[in-house]
Amino acid sequence: MTRVQDVYPSERVSLREVGLRDGLQLVKTFPSTAAKQHWLRDEYGAGVRHFEVGSFLPAKTFPQFADVRDIVKTVATLPGAHGVALALNERGVNEALASGVAEIASVVSATEEHSQANANRSREQAIANVKRLCELRDASPHKPIVNAAISMALGCSITGPVDPREVIKIAEKCLEAGVDFVAVADTVGFAGPKQVGELTKAIVKMSGTKPVCVHLHDTRGMGIANASAALDAGARILDGSLGGLGGCPFAPGATGNVVFEDLVFLCESKGFNTAIDIEKLVAVRSILRSEMPNETLYGGLARAGLPVRKASVAA
Amino acid sequence: MTRVQDVYPSERVSLREVGLRDGLQLVKTFPSTAAKQHWLRDEYGAGVRHFEVGSFLPAKTFPQFADVRDIVKTVATLPGAHGVALALNERGVNEALASGVAEIASVVSATEEHSQANANRSREQAIANVKRLCELRDASPHKPIVNAAISMALGCSITGPVDPREVIKIAEKCLEAGVDFVAVADTVGFAGPKQVGELTKAIVKMSGTKPVCVHLHDTRGMGIANASAALDAGARILDGSLGGLGGCPFAPGATGNVVFEDLVFLCESKGFNTAIDIEKLVAVRSILRSEMPNETLYGGLARAGLPVRKASVAA
Repeated sequence: MTRVQDVYPSERVSLREVGLRDGLQLVKTFPSTAAKQHWLRDEYGAGVRHFEVGSFLPAKTFPQFADVRDIVKTVATLPGAHGVALALNERGVNEALASGVAEIASVVSATEEHSQANANRSREQAIANVKRLCELRDASPHKPIVNAAISMALGCSITGPVDPREVIKIAEKCLEAGVDFVAVADTVGFAGPKQVGELTKAIVKMSGTKPVCVHLHDTRGMGIANASAALDAGARILDGSLGGLGGCPFAPGATGNVVFEDLVFLCESKGFNTAIDIEKLVAVRSILRSEMPNETLYGGLARAGLPVRKASVAA
Repeated sequence: MTRVQDVYPSERVSLREVGLRDGLQLVKTFPSTAAKQHWLRDEYGAGVRHFEVGSFLPAKTFPQFADVRDIVKTVATLPGAHGVALALNERGVNEALASGVAEIASVVSATEEHSQANANRSREQAIANVKRLCELRDASPHKPIVNAAISMALGCSITGPVDPREVIKIAEKCLEAGVDFVAVADTVGFAGPKQVGELTKAIVKMSGTKPVCVHLHDTRGMGIANASAALDAGARILDGSLGGLGGCPFAPGATGNVVFEDLVFLCESKGFNTAIDIEKLVAVRSILRSEMPNETLYGGLARAGLPVRKASVAA
């Protein structure tokens, strides 16, 4: 049984590489299993400890996640590394539990409209699904961590603005259902830092001793500013993807998650020790470039390198 | 005589398009005078009112600014538009005064090492230069606004970290010398939002009723986060360039200023009314693309468009 405080200690920031899941959600060409393992191991070597590794979705529709069990196993071989996998229905949950993955992520849409359009179910049904996931987790031998991500929590591709009170209500129901923590997701990158800070603050307050994750997309260039606001508001789990890999299903050509290496730089600049080596992390991009030559990679650190650290010449 | 409070009212945010100066500082190919005028007029049409239009530098070395007098005149024809030009020595200042430009920008390096290496003068000499500029301004018929930008204020390409107390001291001396306001510049994009916020807060406090400008580069992807921190700390003048045009002389291949259109989105998302139409602004990028096809343009709004504003379907 994995205790959430051991995996996500409240006194530090946990940065999760979600490129292997969210980053690959929309791609046509994806890395081989060996390349994914290489990617994982090299990021682990750079100091990364939290990885979203894939989804338990039908392999026919999502062949990029067909090897999710292998990737779960790879993470398990790395001391101190933590793997997360997404499961959206009971079949997926049972498969995820059988895989031995240390954390299972679930999703509830913030708006009824998006829930129906995207998952063909109401938000109440999605919350019942989360509850069922928690029951299955409780009955399992290894009792993985369970989280619920609230998608479209900061703006919806269908309705536009989202009432934060609705999001807080859904988050509360997910915690009541038994999840270890909730994640607030700006799925389509609609928000600015003020909105992210305010919602995060409310969710942090409501979550009590439980951690809060903020999952941001850089769709409109606000990703790092929003991450900064989330940290200021008390979130201690942030998601990102190497090179900002990924996209947005509702904005063709848009960027994906917050650039992971820039997120590390942000945290360090704010005084949070991530124990991640940015130069080693940037070097891992070469795997993505060779495996997915058509995907655009983003990021300031990769372009410019680290700042000068100390005087290189005398006055 | 232009009063600084009329040009930069304290109750709102003034966003300055610096692409025509800082954005063109390093380019090999640059827009024709007609294209610059087109760029200016179209941004004016989108609601932009503050423009840095060029430098009074030797036309042989900086042919991109040879037409600065024409651009100054173009801005003067647009009601409510405000033009700024850079002048680095007494010859430049006299030319700037003769041009009738409404604001003259000067520069002092934050570190002695950079001041010597970049301008071949001490910081004290640079401050004396600012004082002389203010005297010449006082003796001029139209008395333009004068600002002093403190370059490398948040990190230096030579020394690395910069002591904020040094920056505050230099800013104080510039204000004593008679400038209307100081600009804090993260010339090489070294800083994160915590550092930007803290320095801005101190400069705002020291500046009293005078406005404070924060000039940021997006070199390491922190530009928008830093702008957000600068706003939170009380800065009300921010610089940016359309498409993030420009570069960094100390990081080849790096991005330039903060992306102007994303900066507008940030301000609006924080509740500041900029009176700038983002869609019209994004459309102006076509001029840059056709005039400088080899320059990479950046920006989230240009890629993804504005968020959905209101419900487009019923539940």
